[in-house]
Amino acid sequence: MTRVVPVAGGITAPAGFRATGVHCGIKAKGLDLAVIVPDAPAAAAAVFTVNRAQAAPVQVSRDHLQRTGGRTAAVVVNSGCANACTGEDGVRVAREIAAHAARHAGCRPDEVFVASTGVIGVALDGGRVAAGLDAAFATLDAPGGQDLAAQAIMTTDPFPKAHAARVETAGGACTIGGMAKGSGMIEPRMATMLAFLTTDARIAPALLQRALREAVDVTFNAITVDGECSTNDCALVLAGGASGVTIEAPAYAAFVEGLRTVCERLALDIVRGGEGATKLVTVRVTGAATADEARTAARAIANSLLCKTAIHGADPNWGRFIAVAGRAGVAFALDRATMAVGPTVLFSHGRPHDERAPEAAARLREKEIEVTVDLGAGGAGEATVWTCDLSADYVRINADYRT
Amino acid sequence: MTRVVPVAGGITAPAGFRATGVHCGIKAKGLDLAVIVPDAPAAAAAVFTVNRAQAAPVQVSRDHLQRTGGRTAAVVVNSGCANACTGEDGVRVAREIAAHAARHAGCRPDEVFVASTGVIGVALDGGRVAAGLDAAFATLDAPGGQDLAAQAIMTTDPFPKAHAARVETAGGACTIGGMAKGSGMIEPRMATMLAFLTTDARIAPALLQRALREAVDVTFNAITVDGECSTNDCALVLAGGASGVTIEAPAYAAFVEGLRTVCERLALDIVRGGEGATKLVTVRVTGAATADEARTAARAIANSLLCKTAIHGADPNWGRFIAVAGRAGVAFALDRATMAVGPTVLFSHGRPHDERAPEAAARLREKEIEVTVDLGAGGAGEATVWTCDLSADYVRINADYRT
Repeated sequence: MTRVVPVAGGITAPAGFRATGVHCGIKAKGLDLAVIVPDAPAAAAAVFTVNRAQAAPVQVSRDHLQRTGGRTAAVVVNSGCANACTGEDGVRVAREIAAHAARHAGCRPDEVFVASTGVIGVALDGGRVAAGLDAAFATLDAPGGQDLAAQAIMTTDPFPKAHAARVETAGGACTIGGMAKGSGMIEPRMATMLAFLTTDARIAPALLQRALREAVDVTFNAITVDGECSTNDCALVLAGGASGVTIEAPAYAAFVEGLRTVCERLALDIVRGGEGATKLVTVRVTGAATADEARTAARAIANSLLCKTAIHGADPNWGRFIAVAGRAGVAFALDRATMAVGPTVLFSHGRPHDERAPEAAARLREKEIEVTVDLGAGGAGEATVWTCDLSADYVRINADYRT
Repeated sequence: MTRVVPVAGGITAPAGFRATGVHCGIKAKGLDLAVIVPDAPAAAAAVFTVNRAQAAPVQVSRDHLQRTGGRTAAVVVNSGCANACTGEDGVRVAREIAAHAARHAGCRPDEVFVASTGVIGVALDGGRVAAGLDAAFATLDAPGGQDLAAQAIMTTDPFPKAHAARVETAGGACTIGGMAKGSGMIEPRMATMLAFLTTDARIAPALLQRALREAVDVTFNAITVDGECSTNDCALVLAGGASGVTIEAPAYAAFVEGLRTVCERLALDIVRGGEGATKLVTVRVTGAATADEARTAARAIANSLLCKTAIHGADPNWGRFIAVAGRAGVAFALDRATMAVGPTVLFSHGRPHDERAPEAAARLREKEIEVTVDLGAGGAGEATVWTCDLSADYVRINADYRT
């Protein structure tokens, strides 16, 4: 019998990790530098942004994981500056930061994972980060470090994001923890999503990479605030092994389920904290020819300005959802399609049910909403994507004149 | 020597067409029914929405053009009701309207082209349209009919859209006229873009179709207000031949250029009248591997909420444009990429030029803006897409509670 139980805490909920956050002066005030240090070099796996304008820390960390074959002894994350679009200088600074952290951690520079979030196109001050690392490594044993770390990676996120879960397997229990920062891009030009996961399970890097990919595909890769993809996005998982539980084929599914649970909670927090967001929206697409087509249609709906504004205004405007499904470029049969808000069906088999509009409007005024569109294509393809509504605040936040 | 000269007027600027608009009661007030009648059945070509939720008039008119091999004797357009998502009944009503118009025009029902725009999912009242047709055909000879027609196809467009151009060829001059309605989707669930073009040139339907496709690809298909594609979109061109000018290979290029000129002016009017729009934005992408990749990147920028809000706020935020180019899924080289507002280069060859931000901000405060992104991919691929900014008014307009 395996099961997954949510537990309190974040990246140090699993045994064998220390973390903290400090202020090093990249931001004018507030914590801006986090470190995560496993007791011994940990198995590591990561997924990175597919944006071709990759930030310097993405280039450096990808290279480091390749060189070590998936082993990390320290993680350094700064906020306030993305170190993106900074050319050769940016790469040099990222490497210097890794070298400095390696001296503290007693490891090789390529065993350090670096990540940055914040303003694009501004040089990162390596001296300030180095001084901050000195302070951080000196205070790693102080209590509350995981909370400081979760705060230190925020840019203008409205709240810190940390979750953990215990995975119970036949061979014993292990724990998975995580923290993330999201899409509170209130300060323009923020380079956005970062997620850091830890576990005290023992698992080979290649299997850890596969588990991370599986979990990320249906969680972080299934959310959208505004359809943008940043230059700095990455998700990293470290497996230390302190629980003594080894993840191989028998317990693999339970481990992925645990990883998925933590990732999903972090991902939904990112949507809840989306710019101008007032509602969390689950978009479910069914009846697609394939799961890929279902996801394509779900993404089209989740990114549609007309659907997002209708939800913001609690307008049970099924025509917009059907029209977007029709233009999504996937198999779609209007005379068999269905649109529902929660259990309230507004359109089915080519016929409107506008008499149910008041009931649907009441559901749309809630804080968490599920919208289902069946494409009527006769297949078993299904997908879920999470998004938020689009408010006038989103525009105000992003149109603010910066210079 | 051939040349294209913009001239006054709209769909009756070419010789051999009559048109008018009347109020038939689909809308509570205002004109809501337009007819266009060539003096004799005209060569016809059309392009339709690729949305799979195709409105009834789209299904019927596509079928009619196929049956006649591209010949139309009357065009009937109503606003206020899209006759979309209305099932079998909607198709029956569209056919009845065509039959009624055919009796007035003395033609076959399949020589009638029908189009609708307005609310989705509401039944179209065929009786009101029939009564309106009786009135319209009785007043076809009254002056000012083309203006009434351009008004009658509006839903909540802020202004009517009509343009014309004279094409001078070695074989004589012909004229092309047009009217369009656009994306003033202030009333939710509007099914949107319609364009009607007329010419007194003589041209075979197959060549007319090719010319229309060429002109539409770089005009109507190169604009975006909010990335949506409606259930009712169509563009129709009728060629009556009254000018005596025959368009064959020698004059074809000039004819396409004339058609492109009229279509571009109508298309830009649609963007200017976009929901909540305060600025017309020309997005030019250069240095792409192919023209297709250039267009993909230009569309991604034109639909990016972060780029559109930056323009709205006159924020010279080059990082957003570079980040969107990087995620557009096309060849992109950060260290050779360039971003400029008008002639003001803000980022080139991997380096920011933030000292020019105030100059760029001043340009962004103008009503018409050109943004250029060079992808640095080393190819000759270029594309232009037009869009508008995204304002808080867009959200207010579309979040208005409907029921």
